[in-house]
Amino acid sequence: MFRIVDLIIKKRNNEEFTNEEIKFIIDEYVQGNIPDYQMSALLMAIYFNPLTEKETLDLTMAMLKSGDEIDLSSINGIKVDKHSTGGVGDKTSLVVAPIASALGVKLAKMSGRGLGHSGGTLDKLESIPGFKIEMSSTDFFKQVNEIGLAIIGQSANITPADKKLYALRDVTGTIESKGLIASSIMSKKLASGADHIVLDVKVGSGAFMKDLKTAKELALAMVQIGKGAKRDTVATLTNMDQPLGCAVGNSLEVIEAIETLKGKGPEDFTTLCVELAAEIVLVSKIANNIDEARRLVIDTIENGKALDKLRQMIIYQGGNPEVINDYSLFKQAEEVCELVYENDEEMYVDSIDALKVGQASVLLGAGRTTKEDEIDHSVGILVHKKIGDKVIKGDKIATIYSNGTKTNEALELLLEAYVLTNKEVEKPIIIYETVR
Amino acid sequence: MFRIVDLIIKKRNNEEFTNEEIKFIIDEYVQGNIPDYQMSALLMAIYFNPLTEKETLDLTMAMLKSGDEIDLSSINGIKVDKHSTGGVGDKTSLVVAPIASALGVKLAKMSGRGLGHSGGTLDKLESIPGFKIEMSSTDFFKQVNEIGLAIIGQSANITPADKKLYALRDVTGTIESKGLIASSIMSKKLASGADHIVLDVKVGSGAFMKDLKTAKELALAMVQIGKGAKRDTVATLTNMDQPLGCAVGNSLEVIEAIETLKGKGPEDFTTLCVELAAEIVLVSKIANNIDEARRLVIDTIENGKALDKLRQMIIYQGGNPEVINDYSLFKQAEEVCELVYENDEEMYVDSIDALKVGQASVLLGAGRTTKEDEIDHSVGILVHKKIGDKVIKGDKIATIYSNGTKTNEALELLLEAYVLTNKEVEKPIIIYETVR
Repeated sequence: MFRIVDLIIKKRNNEEFTNEEIKFIIDEYVQGNIPDYQMSALLMAIYFNPLTEKETLDLTMAMLKSGDEIDLSSINGIKVDKHSTGGVGDKTSLVVAPIASALGVKLAKMSGRGLGHSGGTLDKLESIPGFKIEMSSTDFFKQVNEIGLAIIGQSANITPADKKLYALRDVTGTIESKGLIASSIMSKKLASGADHIVLDVKVGSGAFMKDLKTAKELALAMVQIGKGAKRDTVATLTNMDQPLGCAVGNSLEVIEAIETLKGKGPEDFTTLCVELAAEIVLVSKIANNIDEARRLVIDTIENGKALDKLRQMIIYQGGNPEVINDYSLFKQAEEVCELVYENDEEMYVDSIDALKVGQASVLLGAGRTTKEDEIDHSVGILVHKKIGDKVIKGDKIATIYSNGTKTNEALELLLEAYVLTNKEVEKPIIIYETVR
Repeated sequence: MFRIVDLIIKKRNNEEFTNEEIKFIIDEYVQGNIPDYQMSALLMAIYFNPLTEKETLDLTMAMLKSGDEIDLSSINGIKVDKHSTGGVGDKTSLVVAPIASALGVKLAKMSGRGLGHSGGTLDKLESIPGFKIEMSSTDFFKQVNEIGLAIIGQSANITPADKKLYALRDVTGTIESKGLIASSIMSKKLASGADHIVLDVKVGSGAFMKDLKTAKELALAMVQIGKGAKRDTVATLTNMDQPLGCAVGNSLEVIEAIETLKGKGPEDFTTLCVELAAEIVLVSKIANNIDEARRLVIDTIENGKALDKLRQMIIYQGGNPEVINDYSLFKQAEEVCELVYENDEEMYVDSIDALKVGQASVLLGAGRTTKEDEIDHSVGILVHKKIGDKVIKGDKIATIYSNGTKTNEALELLLEAYVLTNKEVEKPIIIYETVR
């Protein structure tokens, strides 16, 4: 076979791996025959001599094959998966999945929990009293066949190679490599078994990708992998320079998602949800073009069918559907602390550091710092003023919902996050472009 | 203190380490607080973003401080150390050290054993019946004070950081980095306690450095480290495109060294020894310029004083000095196999792959493949024809001295090593230049 040190030197010298070499590396690494100290040297060599398109696809497939693949063939219709690269206040799945399933797309979504500044979809759903994120495969497939939609926790052994590699990359300064990021995301998405994949690639100060150029390169790489694996894949590049919508924190975000399905959501978040849902509809060939897809999506919000889907899902998964009409059924925070603008001078919001808002929310207990942390579903932050908004004396800038844990530290971080200016500021666009 | 992952990213982003950061890395690595998988990622980052001159010096000093430093202050006079980056048939120390000590320089040399294709000085000396390479520090210092010369094995715990790092670099494709090589060599040399250092940097197909440009860069880096550590350091760049001299194998090389001290050595090897000995004499300020130093060296060979020094050393270290006059006192190989040129066409030696000759010698038992291997001092190879030599029918090209182990394989390798041509070939120069 191969000697791993020769393969390290090969990549160090910027030569392309064959598919057999990549399979060897992944298989032997997962089996523990390649030690971490050789893999990390290889990863750093890859950082400097990036994977080619072919290598990236080969790596994705090798990681995919390292674990279980979900077989969705017992679900009728077109199955689409949606993935976000992660941001602050990102409750998009809670809106997009009901809309798309209301239009006939099947969404059999296996989701993850949150770690760090970005919360996970499962954590958000669990803020609904009674909601269960665990069920058998049989029940999962049955639910998707009956109502078109389920969001559950991941129990299968998906891409163990990626798990092991990601943990190593995290501590060896080798996260930021386009081919490694793309293959990590796409191996998981391909293993989830959907026919098509819609990716929300976040760009900006609050996202992993800080600039549009590198984000677009990553998007292209993932779309290429999707094509190589014979799945229609589109990637929409979207703005993450400030928190998405207004709500950051689990039940607060669920409420905002419900409001959005009622047609009363924040403008930026609604625009994003409509666009991503339209891409799902388009990739499923339910519409002939993106304009038609957008109209279908907006209709589905306006006629209440999307909200009905969310209600059905809550019922099927054991939650109390009354939360949709009565937000007081969510666990309530004990303290509500308003951040009010007290100066005479009229100002505009110049920027909001989304990471700091996310960290403030984690401080309050809405997120996890370690995997073992318990989450408080009731706490979080509402940002009332967003970039470009005018601020005058007496305006509420933000509200903190707390149960007494680190409220002052969270407030301080929130104050740091906001930068005001006396010049008018343009509102940022939310959708940059879509890579197909 | 520092987080190692931040330091990996710092170097990955091509920023310069402070001295404190380098000390932290080395100290924590030696103590086992930085795992190999982080260190190897850092080493690969250093491969791509090479250490600066300042970082290289800081790293050298940190590795030096990781272990024992030899205190040679009880030895009177100017102490010089000589180091070769390694080649095939390199018995230079056995000639250069006696010459320099005969001229008043003190050589308190701690040497290593051979591994792979290049034999070690200690192994060569042990082919002399009775020769001991172990002694107490007291006896070592006493011998150097009395006769100016001792070559012994390394027992102190010299630069453990380098040992640990080198083993990791060897299996992670991170050997070939100028700053890492330079600091590895120089930390050991500085720890050996000499006032001045003369380096023989080998260049060519049989050496670690294949081309003059990279070899010169390495030489400059080492000389800079020497200056930074306040030791006069010179590095001579010398040819290693073919085996040095004619003898490869332990006792064969000792005999060739003795012949050279008698003024009857091979031309290329004699030239090299004179040059390196002259550099030692010059750096010790015994001569005013290199021409004067060369004259002193040649005189010392011609008047027999250099050979006397070798004899004294053999006596002091328990060996039989009669070997100098009677080579039959060395253990003799049982088989002698001549490689004779049998064709009618007159040819010239175009190239000799020194690595293959070295490997052939190891096959015969003259070297080690693993650290545990026992060495057969009597076996080896004499190459009679060197690059540029004419070869006519009946000429002996080489002689194999064997004790029946893998003679045919060695012969085959030797045949592969030689490339003949029908065009005249120029003899290679042996000394390229000296970096001061």
